[in-house]
Parts: sequence; structure tokens; C-alpha cells
Amino acid sequence: MRLCSYLHNGRAGYGVVADDRVIAISSVLGDSFPTLASLLATDDFLERCTQAMGRSPELPLADIVLQAPIPNPGKIICVGLNYHDHMVETRHAPTQHPTLFARFADSQCAHGEPMLMPSVSTQFDFEAELAVIIGRSGRNILADAALDHVAGYSCYNDGSVRDWQVHTSQFLPGKNFPATGAFGPFLVTSDEIPDPQDLAISCRLNGEAVQMARTSQMIHSVAELIAYVSRITPLSPGDVIVTGTPGGVGFARVPPLFMKEGDLVEVDIEGVGLLRNHIARETMPSA
Amino acid sequence: MRLCSYLHNGRAGYGVVADDRVIAISSVLGDSFPTLASLLATDDFLERCTQAMGRSPELPLADIVLQAPIPNPGKIICVGLNYHDHMVETRHAPTQHPTLFARFADSQCAHGEPMLMPSVSTQFDFEAELAVIIGRSGRNILADAALDHVAGYSCYNDGSVRDWQVHTSQFLPGKNFPATGAFGPFLVTSDEIPDPQDLAISCRLNGEAVQMARTSQMIHSVAELIAYVSRITPLSPGDVIVTGTPGGVGFARVPPLFMKEGDLVEVDIEGVGLLRNHIARETMPSA
Repeated sequence: MRLCSYLHNGRAGYGVVADDRVIAISSVLGDSFPTLASLLATDDFLERCTQAMGRSPELPLADIVLQAPIPNPGKIICVGLNYHDHMVETRHAPTQHPTLFARFADSQCAHGEPMLMPSVSTQFDFEAELAVIIGRSGRNILADAALDHVAGYSCYNDGSVRDWQVHTSQFLPGKNFPATGAFGPFLVTSDEIPDPQDLAISCRLNGEAVQMARTSQMIHSVAELIAYVSRITPLSPGDVIVTGTPGGVGFARVPPLFMKEGDLVEVDIEGVGLLRNHIARETMPSA
Repeated sequence: MRLCSYLHNGRAGYGVVADDRVIAISSVLGDSFPTLASLLATDDFLERCTQAMGRSPELPLADIVLQAPIPNPGKIICVGLNYHDHMVETRHAPTQHPTLFARFADSQCAHGEPMLMPSVSTQFDFEAELAVIIGRSGRNILADAALDHVAGYSCYNDGSVRDWQVHTSQFLPGKNFPATGAFGPFLVTSDEIPDPQDLAISCRLNGEAVQMARTSQMIHSVAELIAYVSRITPLSPGDVIVTGTPGGVGFARVPPLFMKEGDLVEVDIEGVGLLRNHIARETMPSA
């Protein structure tokens, strides 16, 4: 099942995507579950969706404005250096543990929205990643049971402002400019992805493949990431773990290949979806 | 004026602290401003507080349970390596820019609550820091105008789980275990702190001074931090910038000095307050 969050005539809702339509299940479930994240918290959310579909109006996809599948996650935990070839190209030494940093929710944008290159940089880089959306809460989750806590998957373009990312040792500045992290188009429920470690993942810039890998190449699997993260901090419905990017990123190329205004960037993950965004220049508001 | 957030008979409120009493202004303002952060968003919040005080009930401080001044900030942005002696003791090279990382809100605890040493570590370290609480929203704020965006100040003990902090290059894991960051006791409004760079700051462990410095020793001033952070990400009312710790931290000592169960740790900042917490051992819940 493909779930989405959207705006329709300016009002927020969520629904089930079927071809070129959205079945607006929030019209039935919205009183009890105001957001998609709150619905994912129920153990039987798939059944609830199925039951609500028969009683919900349909909207043409063209009539809604997609939001990120979870527009305002409580926690967005990103993983760096989780594919060997990316670790090598960025000249980082291997570590036993996952490399974690955070994004704020307002650094995200949706499928179809422009990804914004900050006015203070020209080094805006692509990073195709598999996003994991938590359904069932947990702390200290064992790797063996970790996938039971996953509501679904989506694509993420963890866009990186490289010069700001290397101002210091900490990645946060390069990963938190507004609308630099694209997330979508939909949440594909985990029953449709029996093995998240067996998916083709690629990034295309203006139609040309710039990253091509399989999720089997992850150093720390989705299950291991959930186990490690949840040793540190509780995971809640709608939290997102962004699982790292494979080799091929722009700044490691000779010469470097950065995104520029008007470019089209696509993240394509087998069975999960195709996330498409154009690049626009951010106009910097003053205080 | 000293403002606080609290629970009274299990209900959340906020008020003005006067000696051993709290004037419960949320009983008057709460309908319009459900949280202290939402009140801070108004340009005339000091006047609103003063006006509400005459019409608000008083509660003995002993009858309330203090929460962190802002229990659920939208963004908690911590600054590393912002005092020269701390940079030297941690063997980090100087950088031109502030070193930023994030805390999640559930990693905080209040004055008087126990700070929790995680079950998976024995390297729980203290870090006395000045916390800056944003009042007026802004992006791309100029340093010259930055202090106009500050609603007030508080104390922060940016407790660090050192072994997890150095798992990789990124500080996040060592800074996000539950109840490791103590924040409080109160928000002191900025009219009472004309110069945040001229304050004595210290940390005491079981009564013994372990950190003693002045905020004049910060490498990047409060104003410069606000300017830098707001180039990256919008600042909103209730956001918190935790401005870094001076030298003297436990893990850099020979032999190392970590906090242990039953210890009393205090952060004392001139004119801002005295933040006191005991150390307890976290009992790790299972998933």
C-alpha cells in the first residue's frame, strides 16, 4: 500500500495512492488520527486503511499537493558513511558504529517541490538514500525484532551543502538548510518490502545515472540501525531513519559535480518509488 | 523576571518566580498562549507577564514540579568547542566556525530531576553551559541585532556520554540519551542580562568546583552564534542554543572524573541561576 500526506485546497490530509488517484482516508480516520504518523502508531493500521478506503472520497493526484510522507517527524536521524564505496570516496576511516546526525523537520521538502540551493553556497550535492519510517514505538529494540517497528519505506535525497558541512567536524550545518532534504513521494508499507537489504537504489541528475547501488551494500543494515539508534533514544511513530548514501556523490568526483538551478534530480529505489525534484536557488529572507 | 514551566497536580502551566512562590500567569494567559514558548513569541511578553501577575493565583514553589523552562523546544542546537581551554583539553584543532550538533527534546530534564547515566555507559560527564532561549523568530539575523531575538537565558548541563560520543566523528549519540541534558531552573529574561558575555560560569560536582570560567572566554559570542545558526536554519520562539562548555570536563582529566550514581552536580551562572541535579542510573526499558 502506498500512503501519502498532502494538501488539498490548503487543507492537510492523508490517503492511499491508487494509480492517478488518492483515496482520502483522512476524511474517515482524521478525527481519531489527525496525521499519518498517528495512524501508523496503531498495530493494525493496514486494516484500518483498507476498511476506510471503501468509505472515503477519491481525489485526482493532480488536484493535491504532495507533502513529505511524514511532514513533521519528531526525529529525523540520518546515517553517514553507510556504504563502503562512499566511505572510501570521502576518505573517512571505517568505524564500528553507525555515524549519526540530525535533520530538523523544516529542512525537508516533498516530491515535486524544488530542492533549494542556499544563497550562501554553490556546493549543493545529491545523496540517494532509503528512508525508514517507524510505526511501532520502542527503545532498546533488538535487531532481530527491529523490522517489526517499521511502518514503511520511502526515498530520500539527503541534499548536502558541502562547504558548510565541512566548516567543522559536525555535519549538521551542511544538512539543515531549508528544503535541502527531499522525502517521498509516498510511504510504501513494509508488507510490500519483505527485504529492505535487497533493493536497487540509484540517483539520476538530468537523466544521467550518478549513483547506482544495492541496499545489500549497506555497512549497517536497517535492522542494525534501528537497534543502535534505539539504544540511545526512544523511537516513535513517524520518526525517520535515513540510511546513508552509496558512492558517486558530486563533491568526490574529479572535477566535482554539484547541482545547479534548473537541474532535475531523481532518487529511484526498487519497489519504493521515484522521487523527483528540480533545483531552485533559495532567496535569503532577512530577519 | 524569572519565568518557569511547571506541572501542578499533573497539569502543565507557566509562571513568574518570586522568592518561594510562583505566580501562575498561565491561568490568565493560557488560552491565548498555551506554552511559555508561544508567549515569548510576542514582542511585549514582559508587559503581558506584568499585567497578568496582578490577576493570577500564587502557588508555593514547593507545590509545583519544575519542568525545563522550555519543555519541548522545536530546535535544540548545541555548540561544541566554544571555549579555548576546552578545545585544547579535547585536542581538537581550532575552526573558524561554530561546531554545531543537535539534541532531541526528550534528552532533556529539569532542575531537581535526576540526570540519568545510561545503563550502557559509565562515562557520564558534566558540561556547564549558558543556554539562550529565542523569543523573536528570524533567519539570516545579523550579529548586531541578534540579542534582540533573545527572550532570556538559563543554565544547561550538557551531559555527555563520552564513550558513545566518540563512536564516530559525530557527537549525536553521546548527547541524546534520555534525561542527560539538564536545563533550568528558570528562564531569566534578557532585560536582566545586559551583557551575556560578562558572566561567571561554573560547575560543581559534590560541592567541589570542577569548571570555573567567564562567558567572556567564549570563542563565538552569543550574538555570533545566533547569526551563524540563523544563516542555516530559521530560529523560532522557544528554540534553544546551548553555547558550549569551558575547560575542566571530566574525561579530559588525569585520571578521568565521571559522574556516578548519587552525585550532586550544579551549574551556577552569575545572574542566571543555579541548576542542581542528582545522578541516577537509567534502568533500560526493553522494546
